[in-house]
Parts: sequence; structure tokens; C-alpha cells
Amino acid sequence: MGDVKILLPTNVPLDPVLPDGVEAVPYDTRAPLPEASRDAEAIVLWASSPTWMAQAARDLPNLRWIQSLSAGMDAIVEAGFGEDVVMCSGNGLHDVPVAEHALGLILAAARRLDVAVRAVDDHRWARELGVNQPLDNAGRFSLISGANVVIWGFGGIGQRLAGYLRPMGAKIVGVATRAGERGGYPVITPAELPGILPHTDVLVNILPATPATTAAVSASTFEAMADHAWLVNVGRGATVDQEALIAALHAGRIGGAALDVMTPEPLPSDSPLWDAPNLILTPHSAGGRPLGADDLIAANTRAFLEGRPLRNALG
Amino acid sequence: MGDVKILLPTNVPLDPVLPDGVEAVPYDTRAPLPEASRDAEAIVLWASSPTWMAQAARDLPNLRWIQSLSAGMDAIVEAGFGEDVVMCSGNGLHDVPVAEHALGLILAAARRLDVAVRAVDDHRWARELGVNQPLDNAGRFSLISGANVVIWGFGGIGQRLAGYLRPMGAKIVGVATRAGERGGYPVITPAELPGILPHTDVLVNILPATPATTAAVSASTFEAMADHAWLVNVGRGATVDQEALIAALHAGRIGGAALDVMTPEPLPSDSPLWDAPNLILTPHSAGGRPLGADDLIAANTRAFLEGRPLRNALG
Repeated sequence: MGDVKILLPTNVPLDPVLPDGVEAVPYDTRAPLPEASRDAEAIVLWASSPTWMAQAARDLPNLRWIQSLSAGMDAIVEAGFGEDVVMCSGNGLHDVPVAEHALGLILAAARRLDVAVRAVDDHRWARELGVNQPLDNAGRFSLISGANVVIWGFGGIGQRLAGYLRPMGAKIVGVATRAGERGGYPVITPAELPGILPHTDVLVNILPATPATTAAVSASTFEAMADHAWLVNVGRGATVDQEALIAALHAGRIGGAALDVMTPEPLPSDSPLWDAPNLILTPHSAGGRPLGADDLIAANTRAFLEGRPLRNALG
Repeated sequence: MGDVKILLPTNVPLDPVLPDGVEAVPYDTRAPLPEASRDAEAIVLWASSPTWMAQAARDLPNLRWIQSLSAGMDAIVEAGFGEDVVMCSGNGLHDVPVAEHALGLILAAARRLDVAVRAVDDHRWARELGVNQPLDNAGRFSLISGANVVIWGFGGIGQRLAGYLRPMGAKIVGVATRAGERGGYPVITPAELPGILPHTDVLVNILPATPATTAAVSASTFEAMADHAWLVNVGRGATVDQEALIAALHAGRIGGAALDVMTPEPLPSDSPLWDAPNLILTPHSAGGRPLGADDLIAANTRAFLEGRPLRNALG
């Protein structure tokens, strides 16, 4: 019996320490898979297009294991791979970069860095951002210290973000399917969310895209939020009712929205989202840095060879 | 003997609990002091113009104590008040807001929120910020985790900022006039700074404006910095050689600069600083929120009445 063949993408620097009996074969994520690679039993996926993945699903009849380096698995699940293929997410690899990005969006909202950047373009000293700022968040969100931050989707990314915000004096509540306490933070269920939304300064959405989370953040969410409160989304765009968000922004119903994810992506140039007021938008750039990918690939390759359960396998 | 009269500015909400024998008189910071207020022995100053303060120095012959709510005292020291007037800074009142702002600027630099805001104006999906980001800061500063952050001016604000950055995995070195350890962080002297600048990802300047700190950050600083490194300035504009900074930015000598302070302020519309590349600029809006001012005023009023040393008195 020959070596187990695992395909590694060339669009991210990878150098996993693999056990004997494994052949790592690099592949170009933007070209068809060469004939010689099509007997591979495993593939690492990173930032491949849905079209490319659909073709790979047809080209890899022997595939038994997919190791994604992304946290969100919705695109891979929908690509048409066989039901017997074990799919492992890159859960954890993006906790640090995404939590850092979320904190950056929260601070950009508090300090209205969007207004500051546009003032630079106009050579304008933005007096409205200068002296005589509010001493608390009652009328305008401007301080992390004392802020009520609700984090919806309270896994690895959310708890890491909470660990950044707590030393800054923010008060954190997590939202997850099971209430209780997680990582030292109080956690409530989505059903309890409306009760605390009126006192929330920042609602951070880190929800994955699943049938259950589609448009979870909706018009009624914005209705319940204080009019100074901000929505930050580093989860998935489909979890927000984007039309309702655009309406809420135009109506001044909420303080603003800082989004790293939206629908569709890339956002087309004629989307009405671009022109919504009090909007900060980054182009799905929170992650993009699978930190620790080599270790995850190496550990899961050993487990795969030995028939042990794989880390981050979808249930 | 009548009550001691203390003048309180109306441009910030103040309600200190003052001892008996003290009369608090509000004043408008943009109008001449009324005759009836000119026998005051104490005044609280907040965001007054140099012109107004120069007039107040002439109008208040009985003045014995100035309580500023600002951390930087350079403008008040230069206003012409008598040498026997005790001057107390607002040191500490701005630690939290300024440290939060500094962190916001650092994250804005890491995630190039300036590029993202301008892309929104162009309805442009900024692919260059998206997938396939660097996995470390070697070529481009993009992650707090693992970043080498040097904080020049390592007092209350600097140590608070360090306390935000350390849980995020940044490696902190303080720079101050005395080397050693402060608040659990290593501290070096300015003479040692050139030795670590080549390995610094972010140089945060929190220096006050004094004769000794004028243009402390100079062409030789930028020469020593790595070409991906950012300068963040939340201290005072005069501590940076601004012409040298503009030249360094145009030459791509450093990664960029995120400035809350500059010279002069407000920055005139024809300043060449506005058009420097890789520049993030906020209009001296890091502070502007003297948190805890009431407590400081109350404590220092009691000390003033009882002849005890005042908090934050200039040496």
C-alpha cells in the first residue's frame, strides 16, 4: 500500500510536520487539480472559491478527510463533497485575529475613526470629535470602560474578545444556546436577549451561518436596542437581516454598525449598504491568518492515520 | 473672613462635593470673567484658549491655586499666571480615555481601517485587506499578538495601555528617564531606545511637551525604525519633528503614523501633514473626558483649605 496523499494549498504558507507514510502534495487553489493528485485521501482547504470546491468534490473520488483552515464551514458543507467525508473546521485558528479585529471595530465605533478619516480627506479639523466628549455612554457610545457589551456567539472568538474587553472595564454578557457561565462570564440564551438589549452599548455578533441563525439579528433586535448602541458583526453576513439593518441605520434607530461580514461578499458596488450612514465596513478581513495551522494539520493527520477522532470534526 | 471662592467652568459637567466655607462660582470659558468673580482664590480650568487664560491671569489678582482638568500643563504654564500660584494638573483623569484611544489607533493601523473607510466611499471591496494576510508582523504590522510595542512616556496612561495590550499577547517595553521595572514592565531610558527600535512594531509616544522632549521623535528615530513599524502619538505634537515625519511617510521609511496630536492644533487646512500617505489622524480627541474630576476637585479643595499638599501639584 502506498503513502496516504494529503493535498496542501499553496495560497498560505504551510509546513506541517507529517508522520512517515504521508505524502504532502501542494496544489494551486485557482487551477484544476492535476490528474496525479486526484487519488488523494485528504485535502487542506483555504479560501477556495465555491466553484473550485464543487469541481474538487467531483475530482477527488478517494477523499476521506477535509481539513479546512476556516472557522466557518458553510461554504464547504455546501460544495457537494460526499457524506462520508470527515470535515474538520479551522476552529480556533482565527480566535486571536478575529477577536483583535472585533476590538478594532468596537474602538473605531467609539472614537468614530470613520469620521476622522473622512475629515482628513477634507483637510478638516473635526471639532465634533474633540474636547467636551460625554463622560459616559448614555447618549453616545464612546468609552469601553463601563460599556455593556453583549457577545452573541460565545465560543473561542467571543471568549477571547471578552478577555480583551474585561481588563478595559467593559461589562460582558455572552449569548449562547445554553445559559449559565462560560469562561467566567455570564451567558444567557437568545430568548433572554431582548431583556438586556435596551441597556446594551455594543452588540457583537459572532454567529456562524446555519439555518437556525439566518437573520437572527433582525428588525426587532434593532427596535430593542438603544439608539446610541452599535452592532458589530464578525460572524457571518447571513445572520443579520441586512435590509432591516440598512433601514435602521437610515432611521437613526441605532448608533451605527461596524461590519466585517455582509451579504453578498464581495459586496457589489451597487449595494445600498455602502451608503448607509454610521457604517464602518471591512472586507471580511478579520481572519485571513490561520495561526497554528501547521500544528492542527499535523495533529489531525496523525489521528487520521491511527483512526482516532479528529479535532474540530463536524458533528 | 468670607468664603473661599473657586471658579468652576461650565463647559464640562461638574458637581464636586465641597466643604463648608467654599463658594463654587460657575464661569463661562468663552466670556470675560465678571467683576464679581475676580476675587477668586481658586479656579478649575478645562479647555480654555490661551488668550482666555492670559486674560484670566490678569483678572485674578488673588489667585492662589489652579486646578487643571488636563493632563498636559504646557499651555497653562505659559499663560502668565503668577509664580506663587499652585498649579495642579488633571493627571490621571485621562488615563482611561487616552489609553483606549491609543489602542484604537494601534488597531486601526494594524487593520488599516483608513483604507477600509476610503474603500467604502468608493464602493470598493478592498481585496488587499482580505484573505491571505501575513501570519506575523515581519513584513507588515497587522497583529497585536506577538507585536513588539514600545511606549515612550510610561506614566499612568502608558501603563494602562500596557495593561490592555499585555492580555492580547503584545510584548511591552516602556521608555522613561529612569530605567528598571515599572508596573511589571521593563523600562529603558531614551539612550537605550535606538537599540530596540529596529525590532519595534509600534512606537507609542505619550510624552508631555517640555523643553527636554521637543522633537524627541526625530529623523534619526524614523531611520532606526523598521520600515513596517508605526508611530502612534497621543502625547503632544511638539515632541515629534513633524517635518521629518512627513518626509519619512512620503519616503515609505516607516509603515505609517497614527496621530491624535500634531502641530499646530487645530491643524490648518493647508498643512502638508494632511496629505502624507499611511497617516491616520484624529483631532486631539483621545482625552476630552476628565473622568473623576469631581473627586479630584473635592479632595484638592479640602487640602487647599487645610494647607496640606495638593495632588498633582507641579514640582
